[in-house]
Amino acid sequence: MSEAKPTGRCIIDAPYENNVTVLVTGGAGFVGLNLVEALLEREREVVLFDAGALPRGADRALEPHAKRLHVERGSVLEPGALDALFRRYRIRHVIHAAAVTSGPQRETRDPAGIVEVNLRGTVNVLTAAREHGVQRTVYIGSGAAYGESLYRYPRLYEHTLSVPATLYSITKHAAERMCMRLRALWEIDIVCVRLGTVIGPWERDTGVRDNFGTHSQLAAMAIAGKSAVLMTREIQRDWIYARDVAEGVIALLDAAAPKHLMYNLSSGVAWEQPIARWCEALKAAYPAFSYREALATEDANIWYTDRDRGIMDIGRLEHDIAFRVRYPMREAYTHYLAWLARSREFFAA
Amino acid sequence: MSEAKPTGRCIIDAPYENNVTVLVTGGAGFVGLNLVEALLEREREVVLFDAGALPRGADRALEPHAKRLHVERGSVLEPGALDALFRRYRIRHVIHAAAVTSGPQRETRDPAGIVEVNLRGTVNVLTAAREHGVQRTVYIGSGAAYGESLYRYPRLYEHTLSVPATLYSITKHAAERMCMRLRALWEIDIVCVRLGTVIGPWERDTGVRDNFGTHSQLAAMAIAGKSAVLMTREIQRDWIYARDVAEGVIALLDAAAPKHLMYNLSSGVAWEQPIARWCEALKAAYPAFSYREALATEDANIWYTDRDRGIMDIGRLEHDIAFRVRYPMREAYTHYLAWLARSREFFAA
Repeated sequence: MSEAKPTGRCIIDAPYENNVTVLVTGGAGFVGLNLVEALLEREREVVLFDAGALPRGADRALEPHAKRLHVERGSVLEPGALDALFRRYRIRHVIHAAAVTSGPQRETRDPAGIVEVNLRGTVNVLTAAREHGVQRTVYIGSGAAYGESLYRYPRLYEHTLSVPATLYSITKHAAERMCMRLRALWEIDIVCVRLGTVIGPWERDTGVRDNFGTHSQLAAMAIAGKSAVLMTREIQRDWIYARDVAEGVIALLDAAAPKHLMYNLSSGVAWEQPIARWCEALKAAYPAFSYREALATEDANIWYTDRDRGIMDIGRLEHDIAFRVRYPMREAYTHYLAWLARSREFFAA
Repeated sequence: MSEAKPTGRCIIDAPYENNVTVLVTGGAGFVGLNLVEALLEREREVVLFDAGALPRGADRALEPHAKRLHVERGSVLEPGALDALFRRYRIRHVIHAAAVTSGPQRETRDPAGIVEVNLRGTVNVLTAAREHGVQRTVYIGSGAAYGESLYRYPRLYEHTLSVPATLYSITKHAAERMCMRLRALWEIDIVCVRLGTVIGPWERDTGVRDNFGTHSQLAAMAIAGKSAVLMTREIQRDWIYARDVAEGVIALLDAAAPKHLMYNLSSGVAWEQPIARWCEALKAAYPAFSYREALATEDANIWYTDRDRGIMDIGRLEHDIAFRVRYPMREAYTHYLAWLARSREFFAA
C-alpha cells in the first residue's frame, strides 16, 4: 500500500541543509506554528502561510528569527495566492498543515467548507508545489484517518485498515490517498505523516480547530486561577508533544529517501495518568489553580478528547529515519510549563 | 458499518407511487438517462439536471413522456441552481448520479475538477435535499469505491474493506462516507448503491466519462461497419445492464425502509465470454461488422476495461428489496440490440 518506489525526479539526496526555504501552510495554527518555530531554530528560511493571524505572543517568540521568517496571509483555496508565494520565494520544501479540524457542530453546519479546505486545498497546494518544482512535500495527516479502527484495535500500524466516519476523518483519509495518487501520476515527492494527539504550545481556538485539547484548557484555567472539575477516569491516548511532531516532520523533509510514503508520528506509548499529572504540574506552578474529580452527579467542566484510542505504532519512523521521542510525558510537561511561564500574553483574553 | 438506524423524520412508508417528482442529477449521462427513462415509464415526474446537453436521439426517445419530464441545465457546483430547482418543483426524491468518471489522463490534468464535482457537488446536492425536505436520496456510488480490493478478492460484499487508489475511487469512496456522516448528523434519509460495470443504452463520451465501455465501442463499430480487433482474452466483470441498474435504484427509492445504508448493485455473476458473445450478436445484426482476435504482435483496436475484478455480491439487495436481475447477458444483448436498431441517430457523428 505505501512502499516508496523511486520517482522520476524528486527523491533527492538532501542532507541537513541551511538556507532551505520551507513553506508551511496553516503556519499560524497549532501544529503549524510549532513547525515554524522548529524550522527557524534550525536556520531554515520559512514562509508561513495562513488564512488567519498569528496568535498573541507569536511575534515576540519568533522575533529572534525575524529575518528568516516571511509571514503571508492567504488561503489554500486561492490558487493565485499560492502561485504568488512560489514566485516570491524560492521554496524547496512544503509542509502542508492547513486544515479544518472539525467537530460535529461544524460538520453539521458547514460540510462544504471542510471538504474545500481539506481536499480542494490539498490539491491546490500540491498543484503549486508540482508547478514550481518543489523537492519534497510533507502532508500533515492525522491518526483520525484510521477512523473507527482507532477504537477497535489496540495498536495501529500504517497498514491497518481505515474506516473513516466523520467528515474530518473522511477528508484527512481521502487527502492522503490523493497525495499518493498524485505522487504517482505527477512523479512528485510527497510523504504523509499521521499525527497522534498533539499537546503543547500554541494550541488555541483559531476558528478552524474544534476539538480544543484538554491540556490547553487546563493550562488556561491554571493561568486564570480557576478550578477544574475532571472526569473520573482518564482517556487513553498516545499523546505527543508538539516539539516531537516538529522533529519528526523536519527529519522526514531532510531524509535522503524515506522508504515509505506514510508514517505514524506519535509518542508510540500511552501516557500514564496524563491529565492527573498535568494538573499536579500546573498546581505546583500556579497555586491559585485547583482541580478535583467530578462527583457522580456532576459533569466535568473541561472538555475531554473522546474515546480511548489504540496506540499508533512508530516503529516504521524509528527504523527508517531514527526518530526518537525527545519529550516523553514528564519532559513534555516541563517544557510546556516553561513555555506557559513566558507566554502569558498568549492566554490574555 | 452500514446498519440503518431509524432517523428522525425521513424513513417514510412509501409504497409504489405515481406523481412523485424525482430529481436526477447527471440525468443526461449514461446511468442518469437510463434512470430517467425508467422513472418516466413508471409515471414519475422527472427533473433531469445536468451540466451537459441531452445526447442525440434522447429527445425522440423521451417524447412520449414529455409532459412529465423537465430538463434543466446546470451544475451541481452551483448551489443557487440547485436551490432554484427545489423551489420550482416539488421534489420528493433525489438520485444523485452526477459525477466525473475519471481516467488517468484527467486525474493527471484536473484533479481539482474531480474533487469538486464528486465531493463538493455531493455535499451541495445533499445540502439542498436537506433544506427542501426531500424524503429520500439515493447516491449513485461505484464498485470503484472498493479500490484495489476489487482485484484482491474474488467476491466483494458491502462490508469488504475499501482500498481506494485512483482519484475516481478515492472520491467515490469519500462521497459515500460523507453521505453516511451527513445522514447521521442531519437525520436525512440517504441510501448508497455501488454499481458494477454497467453496459447499455446511452453510453457516450460526455466529456466527464473517461472509460468508455467496450460494449459501446463495439456497438459504434458495428453500426459504422468497421472491423474490431479484440484482445485475446476476456476480462472478468460482473456486468450489469443499465435497465437493471434503474430497476434496483428505483426499488430503493420506493422501499419503505431499506435495512442497510449501502447496497451493491450488479448482476452478481461473471458473464461468460461477454465480448465474444456481444461481437457475435452485433455481427448477426450488422453483417458489415467484422471482428477477430489480435495476433500476438498486434494491439487490440478497442479499449478494454481494466483488470479482472472480483464479483460484487448482491445478496443484500436481493434479500432486502427482492431485487432480481431481469437482464442477464443474453436478455441484455437482445434488448440492447433493439435499442441500437432504433437509435441510429445516437451514433451519428
